[in-house]
Amino acid sequence: MALSDILNGGDWLIEETGFDPDKANFHETIFTVGNGYLGTRGTLEEGHRGELSGTYLAGVYDHNDSTVIDQVNAPDWLPLAVWVAGTRLDVQTCMVVEYRRALDLRQGVLYRTTLFEDSEGRRTRLESLRFASLADRHLCAIRLRIMAENHSSEVVVESALNGLRRNLDRLPVYTDHPSFHAEVKWQKWAKSRHMGEVDADISGGGIYLEMETLDTGHRLGYGARLATPVGAVRSRRRDYERVAESVTLQAGEGVPVTLDKTVAIFTSRDVAAGDLRTRCQQTAGQGFEDLLAANAEAWHAAWDACDVTVEGDSAATRAARFNIYHLLIAANPEDPRANIGAKSLSGEGYKGHVFWDTEIFMLPFYIYTQPETAKALLLYRYHTLDGARTNAKANGFAGAQYAWESADTGLETTPKWTADGKNRIWTGEEEIHVTADVAYGILTYVTATGDWDFMRDYGAEILFETSRFWASRLEHNAAEDRYELTRVIGPDEFHEHVDNNTFTNCMARWHLLETVAVYERLKAEGASEALPKQDEVAHWREMADAIHIPIDRKQHLIEQFSGYFAREDVPVTEWDENDMPRYPAGYDHFNMNDTMLVKQPDVIMLLYVLPDAFDDETKRANYAFYEPRTLHKSSLSPAIHAIMGIEVGDPAKALTYFNRSAFVDLADNQGNTQDGIHAASAGGTWQALVFGFGGFRVKDGRMTFKPWLPEGWSELAFKLHWRGKVLQVRVYRGSVEFMLAADAEMKEEILVFGQPETLTGGSAVSVPIPD
Amino acid sequence: MALSDILNGGDWLIEETGFDPDKANFHETIFTVGNGYLGTRGTLEEGHRGELSGTYLAGVYDHNDSTVIDQVNAPDWLPLAVWVAGTRLDVQTCMVVEYRRALDLRQGVLYRTTLFEDSEGRRTRLESLRFASLADRHLCAIRLRIMAENHSSEVVVESALNGLRRNLDRLPVYTDHPSFHAEVKWQKWAKSRHMGEVDADISGGGIYLEMETLDTGHRLGYGARLATPVGAVRSRRRDYERVAESVTLQAGEGVPVTLDKTVAIFTSRDVAAGDLRTRCQQTAGQGFEDLLAANAEAWHAAWDACDVTVEGDSAATRAARFNIYHLLIAANPEDPRANIGAKSLSGEGYKGHVFWDTEIFMLPFYIYTQPETAKALLLYRYHTLDGARTNAKANGFAGAQYAWESADTGLETTPKWTADGKNRIWTGEEEIHVTADVAYGILTYVTATGDWDFMRDYGAEILFETSRFWASRLEHNAAEDRYELTRVIGPDEFHEHVDNNTFTNCMARWHLLETVAVYERLKAEGASEALPKQDEVAHWREMADAIHIPIDRKQHLIEQFSGYFAREDVPVTEWDENDMPRYPAGYDHFNMNDTMLVKQPDVIMLLYVLPDAFDDETKRANYAFYEPRTLHKSSLSPAIHAIMGIEVGDPAKALTYFNRSAFVDLADNQGNTQDGIHAASAGGTWQALVFGFGGFRVKDGRMTFKPWLPEGWSELAFKLHWRGKVLQVRVYRGSVEFMLAADAEMKEEILVFGQPETLTGGSAVSVPIPD
Repeated sequence: MALSDILNGGDWLIEETGFDPDKANFHETIFTVGNGYLGTRGTLEEGHRGELSGTYLAGVYDHNDSTVIDQVNAPDWLPLAVWVAGTRLDVQTCMVVEYRRALDLRQGVLYRTTLFEDSEGRRTRLESLRFASLADRHLCAIRLRIMAENHSSEVVVESALNGLRRNLDRLPVYTDHPSFHAEVKWQKWAKSRHMGEVDADISGGGIYLEMETLDTGHRLGYGARLATPVGAVRSRRRDYERVAESVTLQAGEGVPVTLDKTVAIFTSRDVAAGDLRTRCQQTAGQGFEDLLAANAEAWHAAWDACDVTVEGDSAATRAARFNIYHLLIAANPEDPRANIGAKSLSGEGYKGHVFWDTEIFMLPFYIYTQPETAKALLLYRYHTLDGARTNAKANGFAGAQYAWESADTGLETTPKWTADGKNRIWTGEEEIHVTADVAYGILTYVTATGDWDFMRDYGAEILFETSRFWASRLEHNAAEDRYELTRVIGPDEFHEHVDNNTFTNCMARWHLLETVAVYERLKAEGASEALPKQDEVAHWREMADAIHIPIDRKQHLIEQFSGYFAREDVPVTEWDENDMPRYPAGYDHFNMNDTMLVKQPDVIMLLYVLPDAFDDETKRANYAFYEPRTLHKSSLSPAIHAIMGIEVGDPAKALTYFNRSAFVDLADNQGNTQDGIHAASAGGTWQALVFGFGGFRVKDGRMTFKPWLPEGWSELAFKLHWRGKVLQVRVYRGSVEFMLAADAEMKEEILVFGQPETLTGGSAVSVPIPD
Repeated sequence: MALSDILNGGDWLIEETGFDPDKANFHETIFTVGNGYLGTRGTLEEGHRGELSGTYLAGVYDHNDSTVIDQVNAPDWLPLAVWVAGTRLDVQTCMVVEYRRALDLRQGVLYRTTLFEDSEGRRTRLESLRFASLADRHLCAIRLRIMAENHSSEVVVESALNGLRRNLDRLPVYTDHPSFHAEVKWQKWAKSRHMGEVDADISGGGIYLEMETLDTGHRLGYGARLATPVGAVRSRRRDYERVAESVTLQAGEGVPVTLDKTVAIFTSRDVAAGDLRTRCQQTAGQGFEDLLAANAEAWHAAWDACDVTVEGDSAATRAARFNIYHLLIAANPEDPRANIGAKSLSGEGYKGHVFWDTEIFMLPFYIYTQPETAKALLLYRYHTLDGARTNAKANGFAGAQYAWESADTGLETTPKWTADGKNRIWTGEEEIHVTADVAYGILTYVTATGDWDFMRDYGAEILFETSRFWASRLEHNAAEDRYELTRVIGPDEFHEHVDNNTFTNCMARWHLLETVAVYERLKAEGASEALPKQDEVAHWREMADAIHIPIDRKQHLIEQFSGYFAREDVPVTEWDENDMPRYPAGYDHFNMNDTMLVKQPDVIMLLYVLPDAFDDETKRANYAFYEPRTLHKSSLSPAIHAIMGIEVGDPAKALTYFNRSAFVDLADNQGNTQDGIHAASAGGTWQALVFGFGGFRVKDGRMTFKPWLPEGWSELAFKLHWRGKVLQVRVYRGSVEFMLAADAEMKEEILVFGQPETLTGGSAVSVPIPD
């Protein structure tokens, strides 16, 4: 039986054929395996020149001499190299006769097969299966199958654990002046080292390595075992920050040899530092077949809750699953102190920092398919509340201000300069809407799950503290007797230092009013101890009512910020091969401030996140105005345009926008997939399917649906968790069908095209779609 | 001949009698020897438990893992320890029978004598002379004399160079939350290491050690030789980051043994890194007597230009000289890329960072007595202009913004938190007047020296770039049609986030107008290439004229900032043993914002620095208002009050204020002299003597004098450099006498009590002092 026999077919496979060094780093990203506890890039087991390998452990950050704090490039558990008659099998040393890899999304397993030919004409095939277990997140495994195709030779296999890792640090800043330290640093001390060895052991039945992060003091323990055929001669060695185990065996022509490397990983974030070695050594070495079966079972359960399929568009199904796969391996419901970096655990872009991407783009997927994971992600915000308090204080404000870029403590970690040192980055100071976005995540979660315990125990404290931030950040304009927010950046980052960004002002207002409502409910329940004083809450309400929101109710046109309409209306005249706008001649990211061009939805974003707050005419008018002025220079942009285009009745580009979002990594549309997956776009893709084509919204606390299918799609199927129940939705061309599990009950009606429907467990309800 | 025979007497000696461990760190500061290239604290040669030893090399900074960039605690050249019959002579191991030290200010030499008795009753006297040469700033020397008083023993002397140094880093920040890195860092990785060894040599005629700073990459080379009596047995050893030379010799009872340690120090800031070893080895080992004589000669020349004496108050003379001594060893006319830290080169307080202290408090001393040094200090601002440009850009402004705390590059280096992590420090963001203070230093220097070349070559560029900063920082208040500066801190740091601090607004206005004048002169001279455009200059003038300066010309009272008069008028009710106000009950530095209490002169400072801009009535009214509300919680405060009290005709407290300033370190009035000399107070003390009692001012480009002597003073004598000439001033009780050197000419008249006087070289002019 070939190793590939276990692979699923159909729309579950992402494949690579032939080794292309120029695309190797891209494939490393998309072939990442993981489980939310860790992510390991799809580097070949034997490595190759130019690789960007990396294993990242959620929540393990370290600063040391990096420009900003890094998600640590943790010890590498992959190394598994083969020598045939003394020749190393790798793409540098041998000729690659045949090469194929396939990621099986259904069970999170990466398969590879490579036929190497050495200079003596010896052909040897390596096949492997690799996964990070979703059943037990501390376990990883590789099965390696070696086949000497035209020779019989001595084969040496080395399995290693390598702690000699470095993070990429795209220094220097201030390159244009030789006296600046960073320049010197770059030339002479360039390094982002984050670990030192504290323990290693090769005396037991395997190898063990323990590293410690330099600033943060996390202990990272790795134990590995190598199961080999009887008769293999084994040796072990301990080098500096690296341990390895080698076996020597005879490979007969045409006789496959199979070895299993199993690895256990624990850190002092999970278990006591003193127990790490024991835990790792005891856990490593379980049988590969059992691990594989348990992992497949866990994956099947996960997919059962979140699979989305498109009949009639196989590529769309595969892309949807690819994005969902990367969401599934990005978060861990068992870890309430970690969150998802902008590039998940699949690369070093944005250094593992957490943005609004989580709450606004990714969280809906988790809320409606994996609510326990959503809860863990929100608990991270609770556990970093002290960091947010420090941010507020550091900026001269009260309460708690969430960081635009957050790492392990919640402190602001946005770099101040672009990597070339030429442009100041202002988002850390000015993109303050993130604090409201966190509140938005909390409210959305509690509404969808009904988990009021979460609100009482954690959410309310966040809402109160963040409301205190807004109350101190809002500036009173005495002349107009209103509150304003000056010198901010909205979602559209082309425009810096703007006053009264409508998105930000509306979200701050909404945030304060929702907090008041939560306060009222808690007070009614009799909670009093930790509640704010009545006066303070009354003041929040007054301020909220007086926040300047410049919407012309007659024109229906919302000005993105004060003075936006006076900026130059530079037209877009060229589009790229993906039908996305190009920068007009003479423009780039850093000189857009004086134009009306928009990087990504800002007013349109507002219309999306607060669907109850604006009427249809307003949505239509603003979509018509802003859509042609949006350059989509963020992977967060297209999905929102797909959704809102459908909502306002202009779905012409919806499929284009959807594909742009769904394939941003598979097609490397932004050219930087090598830095890691666009996790927000993955979440946006799910939202485009469910909120766009599925037409799902929550309004007034009720589920509502207005689905619409693009041409060629015959069925769109997805599931939604809602207050403990699972609703299966199937959109057909002429109708939409809803079904609850047989034993489920749902008292509240849902609205389908504005009409209420009652759902009963086990029986499908079908509603026609109007033309 | 005893070593002490070379000491000067009279008012030139600062003495310590008896070793008091509690005051040891205080004495280390006040007994610092140096020459502006380096400063070495007065630690005993053999060290002692609890010492805070340190040698600091001007301009040698490094960041590495410190909270903010440090002036590096450089390799220590002092170590010279003695063992008698195997017992180490130091204050821990032996009984101290006799102990005296004396710093001879006249020649910058520190003398010590100590009689140790060991547990066997052996009495041994150590005497030493120590200096850092002012004649050749790369040379340091120690003569050690050992006298076995009641025994004959084998004596071992070890001379070392020690690179194993650490800076103090008063972390942690964020102490109240266990998950913050800094806390972890403090517990586990606390260190401020700034160097690593790159070379060492013990093969030649001495010992050599070369260290490299970690981030900044400066190479620091130290070579030392030890001259010993014939017959001493010599050995050398090289340890990790430390080299040493030992000699063993026989000391006969009553027969003194003399050894000379001579040290040469060069860095890659001075010479090519590859030449360091050769330069150090060649330079070390000159004869002690010659070095001592050359040093004394250089010191005599320095004192000739700047000595200030008070007849009738010996303590005042000694204190004046002590302060001047510390100014003389703080700056190096040969280094245009270094400046003076707030604690000079005498300690680690403020980490060697440069403040407005230089331009406003210290620079006048250098301008009027050592103009070449003043020029070097201002060139530092020129060489850090790129850093100032980066600051402006980092803060969103144009041009160049000088850092509130500046180190080697001019980048802002103010820490954001107090050492206990509890209070945010806002000066880095808000105390923006420092940019105008730099301009003030430049204009004052050029006016006093007539060095227009400096203005043309360096000063003008600074003025133009800093004016661009002000033009972008000034905020237009459309309602009032005026320019404002909001959210600033003035000199009075009790009040943060204030709007329209009058000191800052006036200085910005003055800065712009002076820049316009410099522009006009350069333009008239035909310089055009590097000049700003006419339009830009016209705009500066318009803005300057429209800056809001809230002075009520009728009331004569200046409001320190918008809304100051509405703050609570908390009275001072208690004074300390120095007659200085105490904080009112319930108040400390961090809760003064709502009161009218002032940390240090702010409005009064303005009246001092811009003497032409305000009439006498305004000065009187504001002194009367603000003086009782000033707590002098800065060592910069008393000197200014001494000066302005005399100016407004309220000199009752002038002597008290003067003494408070003059003795701040000698009496350790602030309790933190152990961290280093209050260099600004040293400069303020000189100003109190010359501008206060000497009544000197420059008005409309002319020297003016209105001297006043306190009771008990019969003569105050000082000298002033003025446009290449030296003016000797002697203030007597009834008259004041001016004398130019015989060959000097001075065309411009001076004003004495408002009357013009013409000075001729070689003949004294005496003017009576009105009652």
